[in-house]
Amino acid sequence: MYKLLKELKVDLGERSYPIVIGSGLLGSYDLTPWVSGGQVMIVTNETVAPLYLEKAKACFPGKQIDVVTLPDGEEYKNWQTLNLIFDGLLEKRHTRHTTLAALGGGVVGDMAGFAAACYQRGVPFIQIPTTLLSQVDSSVGGKTGINHPLGKNMVGAFHQPQAVLIDTDTLGTLPAREVSAGLAEVIKYGLIRTPEFLDWLEDNIDALRALDTQALGEAIYRSCECKAEVVSLDEKEGGLRAILNLGHTFGHAIETFAGYGNWLHGEAVGTGMMMAADLSVREGHISEADRTRADALIRSAGLPDKAPEGMAEEDFLSLMAVDKKNVDGQIRLVLMRALGNAWVTADYAPENLRATLKAFTS
Amino acid sequence: MYKLLKELKVDLGERSYPIVIGSGLLGSYDLTPWVSGGQVMIVTNETVAPLYLEKAKACFPGKQIDVVTLPDGEEYKNWQTLNLIFDGLLEKRHTRHTTLAALGGGVVGDMAGFAAACYQRGVPFIQIPTTLLSQVDSSVGGKTGINHPLGKNMVGAFHQPQAVLIDTDTLGTLPAREVSAGLAEVIKYGLIRTPEFLDWLEDNIDALRALDTQALGEAIYRSCECKAEVVSLDEKEGGLRAILNLGHTFGHAIETFAGYGNWLHGEAVGTGMMMAADLSVREGHISEADRTRADALIRSAGLPDKAPEGMAEEDFLSLMAVDKKNVDGQIRLVLMRALGNAWVTADYAPENLRATLKAFTS
Repeated sequence: MYKLLKELKVDLGERSYPIVIGSGLLGSYDLTPWVSGGQVMIVTNETVAPLYLEKAKACFPGKQIDVVTLPDGEEYKNWQTLNLIFDGLLEKRHTRHTTLAALGGGVVGDMAGFAAACYQRGVPFIQIPTTLLSQVDSSVGGKTGINHPLGKNMVGAFHQPQAVLIDTDTLGTLPAREVSAGLAEVIKYGLIRTPEFLDWLEDNIDALRALDTQALGEAIYRSCECKAEVVSLDEKEGGLRAILNLGHTFGHAIETFAGYGNWLHGEAVGTGMMMAADLSVREGHISEADRTRADALIRSAGLPDKAPEGMAEEDFLSLMAVDKKNVDGQIRLVLMRALGNAWVTADYAPENLRATLKAFTS
Repeated sequence: MYKLLKELKVDLGERSYPIVIGSGLLGSYDLTPWVSGGQVMIVTNETVAPLYLEKAKACFPGKQIDVVTLPDGEEYKNWQTLNLIFDGLLEKRHTRHTTLAALGGGVVGDMAGFAAACYQRGVPFIQIPTTLLSQVDSSVGGKTGINHPLGKNMVGAFHQPQAVLIDTDTLGTLPAREVSAGLAEVIKYGLIRTPEFLDWLEDNIDALRALDTQALGEAIYRSCECKAEVVSLDEKEGGLRAILNLGHTFGHAIETFAGYGNWLHGEAVGTGMMMAADLSVREGHISEADRTRADALIRSAGLPDKAPEGMAEEDFLSLMAVDKKNVDGQIRLVLMRALGNAWVTADYAPENLRATLKAFTS
């Protein structure tokens, strides 16, 4: 049957939930203990459905199972696609006692989670992330939502899942580019809070890119553990939690400029983390050697190290001005005091920010 | 300046908030103690804006105030209109520290509240309800949301306001038909839980229809108080709170059949309460005299006593099948054990339900 690698509890009081990590879980692991009603709506996309839908159904024995299959891509993370989920739920007469199950990557998880947060003012959901990025990112934190033409993730809700099932076998069908994008977020956990994980990553980056099951299970576990710690300390993003956005303010600007879906989220975050390291050097917080080490690890994961062709300083500044972290118009950024120690601040010299933007644009 | 009539605290632990009821509040009452950031987005509609927008702005001295004006009507309570609010917030660069203020009736309140629940995953909001229905209904409970073509309020969130400001003067510009619709919900509070309020209503129904300020203040206060009690006992609608839906399962079916906006919500609820009373008689819970008394009060408020022309039993049954209260396909209804004592149940004879539907359809 399946091989359980690790299990983790995300501790949020009465909203606590387990993350089950293993190989061969899809098709054999019983998820019905986390389904309180008789109905399950699996939300997936047209890429993932042919690969894993039948196996996912087998995780809900004895339940009424219906399926909504969305188009695949960040460009569909919008109202129109979200409505397909509500259409399916209402056409199949799912009540407020239904459970949604998100089978796919971050886009499917964000949309199914947001649909669960809003359907009849809130129903439970289960995450079955099938990409490395979603396994190490959206598994923990309860963030759900959709994009708006004027900004990513501008509309959404905090909604915690009942359980998260991570089957590392799903990474076997993931394009190498998406593995790299996922590794960007994995590296992030090392950079913000866990220096010893950085050492481990430097030793194991090749095994991870080669999809070694044991290494993947370990990296996913340590990533989720780090995120769970941060989220437990700050569920609604009052302060500490913002460090999870290392590289994201630059990264979101890149994604928006490039047009959703042209740069992968993780790719943009990879470049964004290099930019944050660059600004941290200019501000005198970390050494040139630290920056070189961070850059080397990010590059060894196969991630880009420059903003998109044609993107200028002004594009960054205007796109970064709508970031959610901002307070009364000031751009707040996550910087590093040391490798493995990040914090959020608006206290930096504007000319240093400009110099960083200049260094990464062409 | 203004005359404060009543003040009520809705007790929900850390989500508690005040309801301020008075005359002349708009234009002079300072709402900034409930605004934590520097930005306010007033959401209103094209009917209310010319009457009260300038006065509402005066309640937020010293703040950046922007406005989104929606088209007026239940038929606009949908994604497209909701997006106008997000467009406005993003175009004016409102951050997650903004406060939304809903100035208008229930549709404006439901949409502004839902926008507040979702914008950047949740920002605070203030309710300034300007119709009797919204003053006695959506002021308390935190229910927000929009309609779906397959059902009313199917997409939404629980999101409590920071404060509610009720200026009874706004009822002076309300069409008589909407006053009657609001009185349906007022009467509902008597029927579900407060028999002594029924006595008071029978004595004061004419003063209420004549928009007597003192009588209105009292009726609004007692309605909000009753709803606040029920909601405090059951914030997320686990059980007791469902009694607030007296007449609503029938009523929603009527509204959907008639097409949103053709019957007012309160009109449909008025007829729906008569239907609930009728079924309560057939089930042997209340006497024929009780039903006659309830019907007389509902009629004296100026409310309709028949389902729309052309609506058949089967229309009711199929539309009621998607109601949120249903569990695994069974239609649950709010019935009365006595006038002033309601509960929710699926325990009734199907032939009695059919007889009730038959009696109210032509």
